[in-house]
Amino acid sequence: MLDLVSLRRDFHMHPEVGFTEFRTASKVVEILTSLGYDVIYGQDAMDGDARRGLPSEAVLEAAYERALRDGANPAILEKMRGGYTAVIGVKKGNKPGPTVAFRFDMDALPVLESTDADHFPQANGFRSRYEGNMHACAHDGHTTIGLGVAEALAAGEFAGTLKLIFQPAEEGVRGAYSIVQKGLLDDVDYLFCHHLGVNVPLGEVHGGSYGFLATTKMLAHFYGVSSHAGASPEQGKNALLGAATALLNIHAIPRFSTGSTRVNVGVLEGGTAANIIPAYAKMVVETRSVSEEVNAEVEQRVRNIIAHSAAMHELDYKIEVIGGAIPINYDVEMAELALEEAKHVEGFSSFKMGEHNSMGSEDASFMIKRVQERGGKGTYMSIGTDLPAPHHHPKFDIQEEILPRSVKLLERIARRLLA
Amino acid sequence: MLDLVSLRRDFHMHPEVGFTEFRTASKVVEILTSLGYDVIYGQDAMDGDARRGLPSEAVLEAAYERALRDGANPAILEKMRGGYTAVIGVKKGNKPGPTVAFRFDMDALPVLESTDADHFPQANGFRSRYEGNMHACAHDGHTTIGLGVAEALAAGEFAGTLKLIFQPAEEGVRGAYSIVQKGLLDDVDYLFCHHLGVNVPLGEVHGGSYGFLATTKMLAHFYGVSSHAGASPEQGKNALLGAATALLNIHAIPRFSTGSTRVNVGVLEGGTAANIIPAYAKMVVETRSVSEEVNAEVEQRVRNIIAHSAAMHELDYKIEVIGGAIPINYDVEMAELALEEAKHVEGFSSFKMGEHNSMGSEDASFMIKRVQERGGKGTYMSIGTDLPAPHHHPKFDIQEEILPRSVKLLERIARRLLA
Amino acid sequence: MLDLVSLRRDFHMHPEVGFTEFRTASKVVEILTSLGYDVIYGQDAMDGDARRGLPSEAVLEAAYERALRDGANPAILEKMRGGYTAVIGVKKGNKPGPTVAFRFDMDALPVLESTDADHFPQANGFRSRYEGNMHACAHDGHTTIGLGVAEALAAGEFAGTLKLIFQPAEEGVRGAYSIVQKGLLDDVDYLFCHHLGVNVPLGEVHGGSYGFLATTKMLAHFYGVSSHAGASPEQGKNALLGAATALLNIHAIPRFSTGSTRVNVGVLEGGTAANIIPAYAKMVVETRSVSEEVNAEVEQRVRNIIAHSAAMHELDYKIEVIGGAIPINYDVEMAELALEEAKHVEGFSSFKMGEHNSMGSEDASFMIKRVQERGGKGTYMSIGTDLPAPHHHPKFDIQEEILPRSVKLLERIARRLLA
Amino acid sequence: MLDLVSLRRDFHMHPEVGFTEFRTASKVVEILTSLGYDVIYGQDAMDGDARRGLPSEAVLEAAYERALRDGANPAILEKMRGGYTAVIGVKKGNKPGPTVAFRFDMDALPVLESTDADHFPQANGFRSRYEGNMHACAHDGHTTIGLGVAEALAAGEFAGTLKLIFQPAEEGVRGAYSIVQKGLLDDVDYLFCHHLGVNVPLGEVHGGSYGFLATTKMLAHFYGVSSHAGASPEQGKNALLGAATALLNIHAIPRFSTGSTRVNVGVLEGGTAANIIPAYAKMVVETRSVSEEVNAEVEQRVRNIIAHSAAMHELDYKIEVIGGAIPINYDVEMAELALEEAKHVEGFSSFKMGEHNSMGSEDASFMIKRVQERGGKGTYMSIGTDLPAPHHHPKFDIQEEILPRSVKLLERIARRLLA
Repeated sequence: MLDLVSLRRDFHMHPEVGFTEFRTASKVVEILTSLGYDVIYGQDAMDGDARRGLPSEAVLEAAYERALRDGANPAILEKMRGGYTAVIGVKKGNKPGPTVAFRFDMDALPVLESTDADHFPQANGFRSRYEGNMHACAHDGHTTIGLGVAEALAAGEFAGTLKLIFQPAEEGVRGAYSIVQKGLLDDVDYLFCHHLGVNVPLGEVHGGSYGFLATTKMLAHFYGVSSHAGASPEQGKNALLGAATALLNIHAIPRFSTGSTRVNVGVLEGGTAANIIPAYAKMVVETRSVSEEVNAEVEQRVRNIIAHSAAMHELDYKIEVIGGAIPINYDVEMAELALEEAKHVEGFSSFKMGEHNSMGSEDASFMIKRVQERGGKGTYMSIGTDLPAPHHHPKFDIQEEILPRSVKLLERIARRLLA
Repeated sequence: MLDLVSLRRDFHMHPEVGFTEFRTASKVVEILTSLGYDVIYGQDAMDGDARRGLPSEAVLEAAYERALRDGANPAILEKMRGGYTAVIGVKKGNKPGPTVAFRFDMDALPVLESTDADHFPQANGFRSRYEGNMHACAHDGHTTIGLGVAEALAAGEFAGTLKLIFQPAEEGVRGAYSIVQKGLLDDVDYLFCHHLGVNVPLGEVHGGSYGFLATTKMLAHFYGVSSHAGASPEQGKNALLGAATALLNIHAIPRFSTGSTRVNVGVLEGGTAANIIPAYAKMVVETRSVSEEVNAEVEQRVRNIIAHSAAMHELDYKIEVIGGAIPINYDVEMAELALEEAKHVEGFSSFKMGEHNSMGSEDASFMIKRVQERGGKGTYMSIGTDLPAPHHHPKFDIQEEILPRSVKLLERIARRLLA
Repeated sequence: MLDLVSLRRDFHMHPEVGFTEFRTASKVVEILTSLGYDVIYGQDAMDGDARRGLPSEAVLEAAYERALRDGANPAILEKMRGGYTAVIGVKKGNKPGPTVAFRFDMDALPVLESTDADHFPQANGFRSRYEGNMHACAHDGHTTIGLGVAEALAAGEFAGTLKLIFQPAEEGVRGAYSIVQKGLLDDVDYLFCHHLGVNVPLGEVHGGSYGFLATTKMLAHFYGVSSHAGASPEQGKNALLGAATALLNIHAIPRFSTGSTRVNVGVLEGGTAANIIPAYAKMVVETRSVSEEVNAEVEQRVRNIIAHSAAMHELDYKIEVIGGAIPINYDVEMAELALEEAKHVEGFSSFKMGEHNSMGSEDASFMIKRVQERGGKGTYMSIGTDLPAPHHHPKFDIQEEILPRSVKLLERIARRLLA
Repeated sequence: MLDLVSLRRDFHMHPEVGFTEFRTASKVVEILTSLGYDVIYGQDAMDGDARRGLPSEAVLEAAYERALRDGANPAILEKMRGGYTAVIGVKKGNKPGPTVAFRFDMDALPVLESTDADHFPQANGFRSRYEGNMHACAHDGHTTIGLGVAEALAAGEFAGTLKLIFQPAEEGVRGAYSIVQKGLLDDVDYLFCHHLGVNVPLGEVHGGSYGFLATTKMLAHFYGVSSHAGASPEQGKNALLGAATALLNIHAIPRFSTGSTRVNVGVLEGGTAANIIPAYAKMVVETRSVSEEVNAEVEQRVRNIIAHSAAMHELDYKIEVIGGAIPINYDVEMAELALEEAKHVEGFSSFKMGEHNSMGSEDASFMIKRVQERGGKGTYMSIGTDLPAPHHHPKFDIQEEILPRSVKLLERIARRLLA
């Protein structure tokens, strides 16, 4: 029998940021395997090219080495090398039936955890051992709940298939897309995603959430040619002229009457010295909209502006998508079903249907959309826990009684649909 | 025997701007014909597509009608319709020999001529009859001199071929190129161009002139799509955003270490109303350099900036060259020969070789270059006359004694080379 | 007894655009005077400096002369010279009571009226006699209705004061503000404005309308110094560089989370020739928002951008407000009262409260706001008429039976409140 | 008797970049003191606020500690703490007379010295011990020559005053200005500056050099306000919008007919994340011209553009001058005198007057100008040495026989003028 609190605290002590969840994911593989699940992971679980905002090779390798040092199983780890850290556990029931899936995100944040005496993990000896990284968004809890659900349904006494998806790199809305692109959502009939906290108090459950924005995060590179600014300025191809032109024109993309939008060039960096024509610049751009279609159109305009700002100054360029999400249209039927089951779980006392979610964007949106596109249904639930500090804050924490309670809720949902 | 003063005064009274020299050119055709010259004119004398900065159809037609009303020969005029106003007179000598050509420009300016009593044409009754147009750059004199030379050499008693080129639209450096592109300079061995005035006093002759700048004048059109700025801004394709982006980036073209340059966006006009996304904008751009190659490179950068500023905002665009010139590298041998002959013409008393010319740009440069490219030689002379007011001024005028004196000089040059 | 149809047709034949309603306004003065009203007009009716987008002196004078030629009363006209074309008729009742006002706009549009045989005014001989101008927005009807109301209540047998406001230059949202600034709304307790048409069918009345956008229209001038672009570019102060910088940055004003916005630079014109550094440029800018406060903030940012874009290039600048409006918050009580009265007028059969208005912006908004600020109440009604073509279209027309019906409605509203 | 070669090699092994010449300068102080010179150094030798491009406190402190570790005299060092590394040695002669000064620059470069076996310092065991820093511009030689001159003239048997100026931070044209601003050139009658190498072969001397460009290097900071780009973009003050606007407009500064110019924005960096409105940006800008006045005008335009680009977006800003130089107009009389003396020094065999210098910019220009402004005379000499690799190259080196030869030359110049 898994000790959920110990598990969660172990994850909390070893926070790993997006695409470096080597130790966490290898633990998940070990436990799922020991519970008799078929486990899909490494390059089988992710489309490598569809990973967004992948860290540099050096960062990936350093995290890999750290996981090795911290006792992760080398044989499992080897398959995850280079940032393939998704894990999917599959259990076929003893009778035919639909496929029900749950999503659990595993990654931590680049936040320095508090050492204040009143910070619960500090007081109880399970503060992050990786200085500068922290589970400040409850994904340690999510991963733990996923393993609890795995245990609860390990006997396979149900009709259909259970699929437990442990996702890397939700922060920055980067990881879900690569799992979707690998086709792993294609056979799912019902998908349940959730988040702990999100301004919902302990005891309250929301069956569905709306208000997530479509967004695209891009990293653009402008490649020119340097030259001495005094001796031969005309021989340079000025990357900063291209980038500055792009910046102004991106901000000048018009308002859309078809849905409110946002654009931002959040970072621009280029050039090396006063007397050198800048040969390189990079730019981080973000688009958003309430509408997926409008966001796609704004993204397209950003791409066009960058392409021609570069070409105007004879620059080469490259645009990488480093993150993205779309709105979530949850299925009311699933939200209602979730609330019905929640009413049977001790500890839940407040039940709401679709509430506006305060989290901005979520890449589970790609998973839900894929399921819906293929005729399935899905929802995104919020499960309350009182927060001592906001999400992403050095003193963020969850109440651990929510762990078994959430396991119970998801188990009931699974059994209901796999009956 | 031609009365040069009467001829000049007749031209002065009927000033016709670039590509509308219908009356002037038809007179030239009549006189050359009567003198037994082979006359090339109309579409035989010009490459229509190579005419730069051609006026609108309406302007051309109105000028055509005016020339008709003012007694121009309808049969000749018909061949010039639509702005084909170049005339080339060819006389083959009675012995074989080289081909010697002279260039005379015929066009007037959009200047309102002075009515002051002390303005010589006003005082002597030959002020412009075309209000708002004026021969304020001595081309009436140039044309007259050309006809005088034609008469002087009409007997054909020389060895070789004489070619007298009467050019339209020198103002704005627009007309020479179309004659060159028609191939009419290809057989020329020696070419002499000249200008009266240009800050050279009466009695002085310069055998050659340098310092003319390479230049390109362009008219760019940006074509977008209008839309209501309140109701559906995203449906517009904003021509002014493209044009303003081009404007800033054109001015940001770097300095060249290989030759000093200039760039200017002289005109920008676009849009119709506050609440309409602008569907159209136009822009007039000028580049210059002491070097033809550098000017060509700057022009190419302007074109590239316009193309991509347009494409960035999903605009179509068109660039018309409406004027251009290149530097003149006169042949010292020709300049010396001209001065030697000038010393034999009464009235000339000061003789200089290559002096810096104060006129900026000249499209005779294309003619001289073509001759030189094919192994010939050429020069650009300045023939002095005291000026009561600067070129292009409402009180500009020349001293008429320079007319027969210039005819004599050019006749001597021709006879020397056709001996 | 006024012949409303004849009156309307006379106005229709003599359409006068904003601030040039000399003939129309002088007719209004004559009729109101003949009906025994106190008439305020000329400089007594408008704050001259608060007139927005006033035409040039030449345009005003030409229209003035035309009105004279067309038989307008010279003594009355004299007081309106220079664009003072508002007229307010005041009638005090025979008992004390509140002040009730109605607004009627009088100006026409720069639209060329259709000559199609099926266009009613053409077919019936009252097409515009002022080619290029047209009553294509029903203001001829509005003015007629106002005079009808004046006649109906001329006896003054009511308790309180009646104020009939005939406004110039509603098109471009320019004229109302100057009447408000003159203080002529300060004593009004109840104000009723209305529009015929606006996609409301004949027989239907809306008691109130919402959805008008706050907007500001500005004309910005950039004053620099010209210089020869080849000879001395550094001596110029380039107005187009300043204007283009302003244009890009105006479009880059951020989205507001506090209310949706629009910005547009609708016109940019500057410069004179390829080889001259542009010394002057002008720009027409429009801002909009659903919120008056947000529009004011966007306007302030536009002003700041223009100021510093100019200063950056050592330019002087001037910004004129040439139009503006704010949202309308109609008083439900007045809308209900209007509908109650409409139910007693034959011909009206469909009654709606506040509907979204399709007209964009209205400067009656300034009048309603002033009344509300001082404790009064107001509304903006829509009175239906079937349209053969949209507002501002060459074939726009109204159904004339709406004229007496509207007079009846407004008379009933006045009598109810002045009882 | 100083061993010049050993001295030079010691300096070469301990290269210190601009304003961190703690060890070098303290050695200079020790030697000058031991030779009986009055020594001005620390805050007495430099105007602290006039130091340009001063490194950060941390960099200064680390270099200070390193110098301490490497045996620099702590008592001397203490006075230089914080980057006060200029040293001036003054020797009054035994008779009255003029003041003659020589300038020697001491700083090294951030270049990684070659470890190739054929690199002379490597082969002879005196390669840089400070990895990443290198004397790759002969300033180790300059400093050595200065000390040799000090020794040669230590007896003070001359008429007048000798002033030996050891300058920090010539690289980046940063250090001379602070010495000038402290007034230390104000009493100088004759000033001789020089450089070894600069494409002049061993045995050749140039009495004067011209062609140095006026230049200004600026670091601009833009300070805005961050805000969430999705939730409240309008609350941000976008530093990158201001910086990009400045960048485009700086590049659009016009060409000057009064002297060729250069402008470059060499670095632009701002913003932190995709979803944050950037609150800070910095920009490195360089201006140049053949004319000090034109460079000053271009610098002024850059400042104006930055000021208004910032204000346009409600940003604060700060501009630091981090480097600068002006052209050098050497006095022909001094150049001739230097050549005359060189002819008496064994080893010099080729003598040229003013040659175009290939080094771009030199801040000794400020010293020469100050001397000339106060009635003195000065020159900038080039003393040849064959170079195995160009200046600033990892394999740069000088020929050591030039050291005593240069000492002899400068000694002769001093004695001639102090006779």
